[in-house]
Amino acid sequence: MKQTQAPKHSLCPLFEKAFGILGKKWNGLIIDVLLENGEQRFTALKQSIPDLSDRVLAERLKELEAEGILVKNHRCTQCEHTEYTLTEKGRALQKAMTQIKDWAHVWLKEQ
Amino acid sequence: MKQTQAPKHSLCPLFEKAFGILGKKWNGLIIDVLLENGEQRFTALKQSIPDLSDRVLAERLKELEAEGILVKNHRCTQCEHTEYTLTEKGRALQKAMTQIKDWAHVWLKEQ
Repeated sequence: MKQTQAPKHSLCPLFEKAFGILGKKWNGLIIDVLLENGEQRFTALKQSIPDLSDRVLAERLKELEAEGILVKNHRCTQCEHTEYTLTEKGRALQKAMTQIKDWAHVWLKEQ
Repeated sequence: MKQTQAPKHSLCPLFEKAFGILGKKWNGLIIDVLLENGEQRFTALKQSIPDLSDRVLAERLKELEAEGILVKNHRCTQCEHTEYTLTEKGRALQKAMTQIKDWAHVWLKEQ
């Protein structure tokens, strides 16, 4: 009987962390909307991902801001409107996003 | 005041589906272990991702099998041991995985 050995080294903790961020539901889509559209207001993000509730979107934006993937800018001094934009760290996800999209278009079928 | 328009088109449903699969907790790590190590038995996968319970690993493997990303092979006719291996669709995720790893090594710090 063939024995399959478990790998001797545990998985890279940085990779695990990356999946902890990117793999969290909605984060990939939020990052993708910001990559495609640049600065976005909360309401615009909400319209792009209509299945996402206000509460969860606000939570995710706060988490992604804490991770340094996006920043919140106060563009209007007369009102409370803020805009969200990717940092350099966030924009650096472009290649990974493109690869995931390419894979999806080749291997997944619309349901 | 600058108005940020929401994009007129909704997100690509294939990309949403890809994140539904890859973004689900543990799936990325399971796929990565199989990319790195080829065929793996359940116990070997478990040892590679020790934080993952038997129940959740079994669930994830079943889901990834249903998605056509991996297959379960009965290698040993004398016992109940099975091995899990990526399909062509699963192996096609290699580039996306590499990009995510590259990003993680540049932008994330170990905690």
